[in-house]
Amino acid sequence: MTDLTFLPQGGVTSPHGFRATGVAARIKYADRLDVALVVADAPCSAAAVFTRNQVVAAPVVVDRETLATHSAEIRAVLINAGNANASTGQPGLADARASQSLVADALGLLPHHVLVMSTGVIGVPLPMDRMAVGVALASAEIRPDGGADAARAIMTTDTRPKSVAVSVEMDGGTVTVGGMAKGSGMIHPDMATMLSLVTTDAQIAPDRLHDLLTQAINVSFNRISVDGDTSTNDTVLLLANGVSEVVVSAEDEATFLQALVAVCQHLAHEIVRDGEGATKFVTITVTGTAEASDAHTIANTIAISPLVKTAFAGSDANWGRLLMAAGRAGVVFDQYEVDLWIGVETPTLQLVANGTPTGYAEADAAAIFAEPAFKIWLSVGRGSAESTVWTTDLTHDYISINADYRT
Amino acid sequence: MTDLTFLPQGGVTSPHGFRATGVAARIKYADRLDVALVVADAPCSAAAVFTRNQVVAAPVVVDRETLATHSAEIRAVLINAGNANASTGQPGLADARASQSLVADALGLLPHHVLVMSTGVIGVPLPMDRMAVGVALASAEIRPDGGADAARAIMTTDTRPKSVAVSVEMDGGTVTVGGMAKGSGMIHPDMATMLSLVTTDAQIAPDRLHDLLTQAINVSFNRISVDGDTSTNDTVLLLANGVSEVVVSAEDEATFLQALVAVCQHLAHEIVRDGEGATKFVTITVTGTAEASDAHTIANTIAISPLVKTAFAGSDANWGRLLMAAGRAGVVFDQYEVDLWIGVETPTLQLVANGTPTGYAEADAAAIFAEPAFKIWLSVGRGSAESTVWTTDLTHDYISINADYRT
Repeated sequence: MTDLTFLPQGGVTSPHGFRATGVAARIKYADRLDVALVVADAPCSAAAVFTRNQVVAAPVVVDRETLATHSAEIRAVLINAGNANASTGQPGLADARASQSLVADALGLLPHHVLVMSTGVIGVPLPMDRMAVGVALASAEIRPDGGADAARAIMTTDTRPKSVAVSVEMDGGTVTVGGMAKGSGMIHPDMATMLSLVTTDAQIAPDRLHDLLTQAINVSFNRISVDGDTSTNDTVLLLANGVSEVVVSAEDEATFLQALVAVCQHLAHEIVRDGEGATKFVTITVTGTAEASDAHTIANTIAISPLVKTAFAGSDANWGRLLMAAGRAGVVFDQYEVDLWIGVETPTLQLVANGTPTGYAEADAAAIFAEPAFKIWLSVGRGSAESTVWTTDLTHDYISINADYRT
Repeated sequence: MTDLTFLPQGGVTSPHGFRATGVAARIKYADRLDVALVVADAPCSAAAVFTRNQVVAAPVVVDRETLATHSAEIRAVLINAGNANASTGQPGLADARASQSLVADALGLLPHHVLVMSTGVIGVPLPMDRMAVGVALASAEIRPDGGADAARAIMTTDTRPKSVAVSVEMDGGTVTVGGMAKGSGMIHPDMATMLSLVTTDAQIAPDRLHDLLTQAINVSFNRISVDGDTSTNDTVLLLANGVSEVVVSAEDEATFLQALVAVCQHLAHEIVRDGEGATKFVTITVTGTAEASDAHTIANTIAISPLVKTAFAGSDANWGRLLMAAGRAGVVFDQYEVDLWIGVETPTLQLVANGTPTGYAEADAAAIFAEPAFKIWLSVGRGSAESTVWTTDLTHDYISINADYRT
């Protein structure tokens, strides 16, 4: 096992050679940070994974174009909250490109050195006058300890900023991986925007970076959001500026990946814990399928079920709803082969054996479901593959937040 | 157009030759009807469509077996609320079969003349002593005007019974189709049980009946619930006792189907209107796909989105969420070809043209979304197929009902 060191108050400026800040530009609100700027001291290798939604925001279109040809030259990322620049038609594309130019002009770069991300309301033109103010303020304020402000500036309905950094020893020396994220409403079962920016001072080519990022996302952000079940803006972006001068060799990749996974999992868990109205952190592991993808499908179907999630909210160990959700996942299994266990850390209470209730004490089950964090293990007895997802409960506060989001 | 006559206070006993009742047997609650019995005066042709869930309740297993060999001999249907007899293992199967025998013994029938349905909590053994009491009471009370009591006895979280009947003229004379249903929580986006029993005094063979029932369900119950996205118990059962002596000829089938569709659509709409916590009835029509199934998939994905449904609850015309949900349906389209209209009855206000907001007045959109019933038309500009679904809003009351369902 590699030694990972979590850095206190770490974030996107923890790796060497990154500066950042967050400023208040009144994009939507009068009194909060809403524009983040992250700048690298050297051209970065960049890799990104974007939403699979057919309806994508303008910054996603523009970043895809930019990365297609300039993925080794990225220098800056501009992120605004309060407006998603989504469903804004052709004018929205022009606004996203103009945002690149604003940053380029302020920092002496070219527009294709700049990536942009947006999150907030959909269908409202990006207020370019306010964006210009934000870029002017931010470019004057970027500093090597500005990661915390940047993380604060990208929040929407998040109740707290989400940042983390780890350092890891590789053959060539120490590298640091830092990251920040903003949450996505409930993530499950819908798709308010999730954004994450991960930085590193390691030196690595864009294609290798993309491969490693994809692997890390598959065991982190993709475990809190169904494949394809994503918003218009969802983006995870990884920048490697090489400032540490430590090259990630083929032998080092596994070590580097561990650091990347640690950062992405920490941020993904933070997003779940800070889900809109969430009071529980629930880990669902499905075992016993022939393929891991089948286990993932079953776990996701359970995790997105409103009936399951309201049972979590009520601390009601209503395992019948868990089985019912599993049964509609589209994966064939025999209901008379199903086992179900629950526990706070390890499987301590079996609720179902071979599809039949075990005669457990309801109070024991309720006690586990009353914990702020607990785990569920469902075995369908059809193979050796498994998958784990993380989810939350569905509470009154979720309704309140989302019924009046635009007002 | 055929003349359909809706019968005042119609239900499952409106067709000739059916008797029914609902009795209080204390299956779960102390003070309400919870066992319904419907009996035909002559052997019925029977057809049924069941849940596609991998986890099915014992009555579904038993009814499938019974109909496989005895679909022309059905005489009685026993339905209980308060207990779903689902996830009850092998003992649950024995209980369902014992329930058939209880009815058969009471009425002088054979067990395979009897079908059973259950709805309520999952994972709890069916209280057979209470079922015996229910069958004894009900078999003594069945009467030709007992449909209303039967409809009341199958309710769970429904706030009102759901019954309807229509008569229709065919070449051979008048036939009547009656039905009752119990709702399914929110239906969308989850799968509390939906049960429906439809009766007719028409004379028709089981295989034709099944074909017509499938067609009727495809434009009614399946428009309020995603294919495959069904509970452990979902069942729609159709019984034809032939007592009118009017044969449904090949020429009459289209006319008979209209009556069947009218009954099924009425019950489906009633289920939506009475959805848990629902305050809105929303009709979503998607047009412009190459295949109707694609339009259905998009419409369903919009209809099940918690973010869309909470916007409905808040009377917030947040069409960005509609497009976002459409975009994650897995159907390819060009976001810059999308048009979106809304209206109370007809499309009166265009919100989006070619993927771009039209500059409509927000107050006009909010006024439509504030109505108790309104409609949405989304065109994706890729063909001439279309599909319509019906859904509700997601409110605080839904959370309250489902967080504490078992307590």
